[in-house]
Amino acid sequence: MGKLAMVAFGGNALLRAGQKGTYAQQLENVRTTCSSLLKLVGQGYDIVIGHGNGPQVGNALLRHEAGSREFGLEAMPMDFCGAETQGSIAYMIETGMEKVLRAAGSDRKVVSLVTRVEVDPDDKGFANPTKPVGPYYAQKPLEGVYREDPAGRGWRKVVASPVPVRINNIDIVERLAREGNIVVTVGGGGIPVVRDGQGFRGVEAVIDKDLASSLAAVQMHADEFYILTDVPKVYINFRKPGELALDSMTVAQAREYLTQGQFAEGSMAPKVRAGIMFVQSTGGRCVITEAGSLGVGGTEIIP
Amino acid sequence: MGKLAMVAFGGNALLRAGQKGTYAQQLENVRTTCSSLLKLVGQGYDIVIGHGNGPQVGNALLRHEAGSREFGLEAMPMDFCGAETQGSIAYMIETGMEKVLRAAGSDRKVVSLVTRVEVDPDDKGFANPTKPVGPYYAQKPLEGVYREDPAGRGWRKVVASPVPVRINNIDIVERLAREGNIVVTVGGGGIPVVRDGQGFRGVEAVIDKDLASSLAAVQMHADEFYILTDVPKVYINFRKPGELALDSMTVAQAREYLTQGQFAEGSMAPKVRAGIMFVQSTGGRCVITEAGSLGVGGTEIIP
Repeated sequence: MGKLAMVAFGGNALLRAGQKGTYAQQLENVRTTCSSLLKLVGQGYDIVIGHGNGPQVGNALLRHEAGSREFGLEAMPMDFCGAETQGSIAYMIETGMEKVLRAAGSDRKVVSLVTRVEVDPDDKGFANPTKPVGPYYAQKPLEGVYREDPAGRGWRKVVASPVPVRINNIDIVERLAREGNIVVTVGGGGIPVVRDGQGFRGVEAVIDKDLASSLAAVQMHADEFYILTDVPKVYINFRKPGELALDSMTVAQAREYLTQGQFAEGSMAPKVRAGIMFVQSTGGRCVITEAGSLGVGGTEIIP
Repeated sequence: MGKLAMVAFGGNALLRAGQKGTYAQQLENVRTTCSSLLKLVGQGYDIVIGHGNGPQVGNALLRHEAGSREFGLEAMPMDFCGAETQGSIAYMIETGMEKVLRAAGSDRKVVSLVTRVEVDPDDKGFANPTKPVGPYYAQKPLEGVYREDPAGRGWRKVVASPVPVRINNIDIVERLAREGNIVVTVGGGGIPVVRDGQGFRGVEAVIDKDLASSLAAVQMHADEFYILTDVPKVYINFRKPGELALDSMTVAQAREYLTQGQFAEGSMAPKVRAGIMFVQSTGGRCVITEAGSLGVGGTEIIP
């Protein structure tokens, strides 16, 4: 068997902060990010891509809200909107990745699966939702759980961010990847579902995409797990005196840094946790880096 | 090899005429339609599902338009909106089909692929767009191609409806289906793309979902092709004196009826053409029927 790499793209790799998120911008960002995967392609890796959808699902929620007000269409819940972004983002990645591959002389195929991810209905996240999603409201809406923005931008819906427990169809993802196809899965962390009788039903929640990608990597026995972000390495004392870019850290060191609060919540901390989970479960190697440094640099988490 | 059946669902099988298309309604419709597939499951068929997205992509276009007006977000083109509906509809079919299978004691998996479909940039449809999509406008918009509704509801965008020439990743769809997985593909007729250098780019068009499903069935060498609609059989002299429900028709008879104008354009005519294409290419059997009669009735098209 060849080496299998799981690569997690941030939603920002596709729609950058400060951009409006036009189609042209997103296609351009996708191409740039996909180009960074060529190093892994050149090294003969089998590749699975997981991706975020933060900015995209935010826009989807706005469109649903506007469609509700203007046309009386139901504003669909998070699971439905997340499924929409799995379709549109996978389409852009397939198209961009394919162009990059062909230009590099590779005939590898790109395949995208719509992916549901099981979560536990008793996950403590559901009792205490913390993940802000969608638009800001001047007044607190009457229905749903909302939290006032500390920066004064208004009220924003908060949903649970439960821990992923099982990636649906991951055996098929692994097999397709090990045949040389580049496979796109767990878009936006996956569509969150809970057991419902003998099947499943969707729930209003957001699964952290790095954690979902980490679980996918564990379930596939991936050799390496790459988490792409917008900095080349993980830092301690980030933007403070004594700032230090780390080349590597052990799981024990990473835990210690987390305890010290070295990594920002909602930013680097969940990535380091996702990396720890993968390294601890598999003994594999996790690298956190920016797209441009993929395969040549970054911060390694090792057992 | 077991027998392989391609089943094309109408968008109406998921969002019925006259319904607002709430999430609850669509989930209920999906369950009902999926139940009708149990007969084929019981007969041991390998199954691939193609589905329409007419009402759903219409709603997506409205949401994009409202989001543009209210929040200044770009209203995305048809290919992007079609990709969104592939995600959301596949998610509903996966969830509904899985419940129906488990309740029937089957552990078959359901897998959904985001599917691009290649069309010819020189297809005559692009020179003469005829497929109406999206909302009605009181005044003719300045940009794009619009046509006035004969029923006086206003102006509506028209896009090309090119002939599908190649279903992307159909070899993978076939293999997964022949392993016993129920595979969802060519949602909304597939995301239309044309060659662009060594890769592809999306185009503003709608591929007829029955024609795309027919091509998928041909490429997979399917044994049978089922086209689900809202009547139990194909009729001649439909709703006129001498109305006759057909049990079967040969390809030659079907062509003759088409020439006579027996089947309505935009309704039964494209289904019959899709059926003819499949039967003529493969020598297989096409059945046009309603969901409730799947596997037991309908109108057969035979060589």
